[in-house]
Amino acid sequence: MSIKEFLHNEKLKEKLSVIIFESDTKAGKAFDVALLVAIFASIVVVIIESMSGWSPLVKTIFTVLEYVFTFFFTMEYLCRLYCARTPRKYALSFYGIVDLVSTLPLYIGWIFGSARYLMIIRTFRLIRVFRVFKLFSFLEEGDLLMKSLVLSARKILVFFLFIVIMTITLGSLMYMVEGHTENTQFTDVPTSIYWAIVTMTTVGYGDIAPITPAGRTLSAIVMLMGYTIMAVPTGIVSAQFIHDNQMRKDEKKTKCPECGCPLPNRSNYCPHCGNEIPLSTWIK
Amino acid sequence: MSIKEFLHNEKLKEKLSVIIFESDTKAGKAFDVALLVAIFASIVVVIIESMSGWSPLVKTIFTVLEYVFTFFFTMEYLCRLYCARTPRKYALSFYGIVDLVSTLPLYIGWIFGSARYLMIIRTFRLIRVFRVFKLFSFLEEGDLLMKSLVLSARKILVFFLFIVIMTITLGSLMYMVEGHTENTQFTDVPTSIYWAIVTMTTVGYGDIAPITPAGRTLSAIVMLMGYTIMAVPTGIVSAQFIHDNQMRKDEKKTKCPECGCPLPNRSNYCPHCGNEIPLSTWIK
Amino acid sequence: MSIKEFLHNEKLKEKLSVIIFESDTKAGKAFDVALLVAIFASIVVVIIESMSGWSPLVKTIFTVLEYVFTFFFTMEYLCRLYCARTPRKYALSFYGIVDLVSTLPLYIGWIFGSARYLMIIRTFRLIRVFRVFKLFSFLEEGDLLMKSLVLSARKILVFFLFIVIMTITLGSLMYMVEGHTENTQFTDVPTSIYWAIVTMTTVGYGDIAPITPAGRTLSAIVMLMGYTIMAVPTGIVSAQFIHDNQMRKDEKKTKCPECGCPLPNRSNYCPHCGNEIPLSTWIK
Amino acid sequence: MSIKEFLHNEKLKEKLSVIIFESDTKAGKAFDVALLVAIFASIVVVIIESMSGWSPLVKTIFTVLEYVFTFFFTMEYLCRLYCARTPRKYALSFYGIVDLVSTLPLYIGWIFGSARYLMIIRTFRLIRVFRVFKLFSFLEEGDLLMKSLVLSARKILVFFLFIVIMTITLGSLMYMVEGHTENTQFTDVPTSIYWAIVTMTTVGYGDIAPITPAGRTLSAIVMLMGYTIMAVPTGIVSAQFIHDNQMRKDEKKTKCPECGCPLPNRSNYCPHCGNEIPLSTWIK
Repeated sequence: MSIKEFLHNEKLKEKLSVIIFESDTKAGKAFDVALLVAIFASIVVVIIESMSGWSPLVKTIFTVLEYVFTFFFTMEYLCRLYCARTPRKYALSFYGIVDLVSTLPLYIGWIFGSARYLMIIRTFRLIRVFRVFKLFSFLEEGDLLMKSLVLSARKILVFFLFIVIMTITLGSLMYMVEGHTENTQFTDVPTSIYWAIVTMTTVGYGDIAPITPAGRTLSAIVMLMGYTIMAVPTGIVSAQFIHDNQMRKDEKKTKCPECGCPLPNRSNYCPHCGNEIPLSTWIK
Repeated sequence: MSIKEFLHNEKLKEKLSVIIFESDTKAGKAFDVALLVAIFASIVVVIIESMSGWSPLVKTIFTVLEYVFTFFFTMEYLCRLYCARTPRKYALSFYGIVDLVSTLPLYIGWIFGSARYLMIIRTFRLIRVFRVFKLFSFLEEGDLLMKSLVLSARKILVFFLFIVIMTITLGSLMYMVEGHTENTQFTDVPTSIYWAIVTMTTVGYGDIAPITPAGRTLSAIVMLMGYTIMAVPTGIVSAQFIHDNQMRKDEKKTKCPECGCPLPNRSNYCPHCGNEIPLSTWIK
Repeated sequence: MSIKEFLHNEKLKEKLSVIIFESDTKAGKAFDVALLVAIFASIVVVIIESMSGWSPLVKTIFTVLEYVFTFFFTMEYLCRLYCARTPRKYALSFYGIVDLVSTLPLYIGWIFGSARYLMIIRTFRLIRVFRVFKLFSFLEEGDLLMKSLVLSARKILVFFLFIVIMTITLGSLMYMVEGHTENTQFTDVPTSIYWAIVTMTTVGYGDIAPITPAGRTLSAIVMLMGYTIMAVPTGIVSAQFIHDNQMRKDEKKTKCPECGCPLPNRSNYCPHCGNEIPLSTWIK
Repeated sequence: MSIKEFLHNEKLKEKLSVIIFESDTKAGKAFDVALLVAIFASIVVVIIESMSGWSPLVKTIFTVLEYVFTFFFTMEYLCRLYCARTPRKYALSFYGIVDLVSTLPLYIGWIFGSARYLMIIRTFRLIRVFRVFKLFSFLEEGDLLMKSLVLSARKILVFFLFIVIMTITLGSLMYMVEGHTENTQFTDVPTSIYWAIVTMTTVGYGDIAPITPAGRTLSAIVMLMGYTIMAVPTGIVSAQFIHDNQMRKDEKKTKCPECGCPLPNRSNYCPHCGNEIPLSTWIK
């Protein structure tokens, strides 16, 4: 059949989309599982391929595998585009973008070598696992977490600007204090800022550490500051989570028999329709 | 008496089980304390035995001791099985499994040497200490903590999948950025993923640290991300704990017999419907 | 015109202040944006100037730039003083002080060299970005955060005194334990106190670490303490944030004109006294 | 006058105790300030005395100073005992014990040298600063913090037992995994347990770090566990703090005009005396 026909073969599209997008039919499930396995395998290949000490042969095998996987994923992506009810919508959806992005790296890799490792972005495709195995409650939890984080995003952004200003200032201060002592590790301001971040976040690699008393005093102060500042994002997020818990609890409230609007605990009257609420409602 | 008789000697079983399973009788208490001491001693032996610089003689003593303890614990386990009211139930209980597991390592050790150190798993048996010394309130606290954690387990699992995806991606990114510079420590993707975990959890050994400006910038971003992400599990658990506190407080309140609304402590009248509350309600 | 005239030229002042202090007019906006760019540029210059390997020529350029920027900022500061409605008020405001402080370092630098790097303090001027781009909601969030922190400042101060006492004591203890072993890193009490802070804040550089069993046991205890103590500031701040959330939520609720009890959103009747609420209450 | 007289000279005792124990009179205040200065000075001496590179002369001066201070503090302690209304009560009070303990080290130092550094325990005496300068609100905050911590102490203890068991088990596991590889740092089980603690608390010195893939995988797991477990004490403390806030808020409630007992918000009847509460009470 001609390409034109093919592009408008609704029957075929229908069949395909059931297999590719849904996982309720036997075929659909099989496809999704196969996909997950393929994704996982391709990730493993990228990871172990990076390790040294492989014989040229093995290396070639890995490369071939990478091509195979990429080819497979490219095909899959095209299929999805082909049989999606609204291709644009899919292409712009979170999954759509991840699917596309995880096929490109190899091609980009032809231009700049190590870009190849961006393939690892595929890991994001594993999120599908929830949908495939109907672990919706997990997806939901994830959404709730996301929502909470988004809601406190503004606060956290402000907090970050603050951290950035702090680290720049403290880093430069440290450079002033230790930058000119002999065999110091604070060779320049950027390095000192890096140190400030390493210290404030309590990561503390120790690759850069003060050696003079003054420097140590300053860094002690930085640590104690970081220690307290650490409390802020945690506080923000906790408060948000608790607030959300509250909200959800409210939704579970008893409804008015008249107008079905949620009743504040032990109301005498429905706040919406004024209908008197029998005390019995509150006796369990 | 014949084995058959022995296996059905209910009288003996009864006697034993009182000693072994309960700690109310003098004998029972004594047995439990002895057991705790034995467990503790055996742990100490395993630990110090691992230290270097022991004379062959001492080493032999340690080995002997280990055999003695293991033999003792094996006997004990068999006894428990023998005199348990429902052996299966005991065998599958938390304690039952721990008891079994803590006897096996030495035997497994005959096949692969260092497996012997699994003996350390015995430490879990020390949890008995609460039961033995009737520190039930502690056990209860422990249960409450566990319950809270279990309730937020789903959220935390989702959070972990997220962390895993993040670390894999960021690790590979780092490998791309620093993997090909001279004397880099990011020798391959797994190492870089390990680094990402070390950094995101703010552990920061510093055994692997970036040296190029680009690498440092990236790791600074990773740190700041870890710093914020750190807030999520804490937020989840805090919210859960607070929610539980609320629940327990509400449950504790006595309800008005008339309108079923919770009564403020020692009320004479229901704050809602004015119904008189008999003093008896408050005298327990 | 004479200086005297100039100093009292209200017209000019008016014009200037609109440009310099407000960002609603085209000119005002332009000025503010230019200012932000200048600030940002000057920070970048200070930072990269500190890096080694610049040719003398480049170094000179940087120095010149620094002088240009400083001169510009000095001019700007004087203008602000000149055209501010109440110069004293501006001079003592947060912005006023930051503006002044960020012009001085270069001049101070003439006396002690590296003080020049204090210029970095300019980063604080970037906070203007919120005002310029009308991101007031961010400013507000920031204020709320600040307020919460200030409200829990007393608690945190007490907590700090405690930390200081702890670290001094534990540091000295450590010095007693490890200070006299061979090639120890605990060379004196201050160093040990520094170590205690590094450990308690879980930064853990590892530049100073115990090597004797005794020392390691002690530091293990210090870590576990720090681990728990870490919970305190977080707890304080979280509690504060949650408290504030509550407050704001309660304040937001419209009250019943009759009995003054907070009304659930869009009530037609007060849930408490049944009094009818005019719809107008809910239409803003 | 004879010792007997002296010991019962109530007048003198009265005078002294006003000076030593109170800080409202001019003399009392002076004494307390002098004391604080002395304590601070003695701490500084101990700290800098430990630093190397002092000439013998300076060292002698330090030693003399230490003797002077200790003598002074001993005298002070005896005075306190002498003029305390109930010497026993003072001797067993927190301050009493701290006062005693901070005089002993020098004497103990005669037997084992470095014990001298225990003098540092004096830092605890600085807590007086709050009382002396009437910063009672701070003391109160401190008490509240303490109370909260004590209330959640049981939970935290259970949590610790759990941590101890975990670290012992994971440490031994690590020893099994890496203990027998060449130039490993996991030389024995205690070292590995130390490592487990360093890792779980996210301190991460890096003085002991895994080098084998297996070891790194295990430690990655340990880190992620520590990361989550970290949330528990924070959650406990936060929940406690929030609970306390609630309590204090409740105390602030409106009281019943009849019997003055706290009224649940918007009650129709006093829960205690049944007196009908006019709605006006709730209109502000």
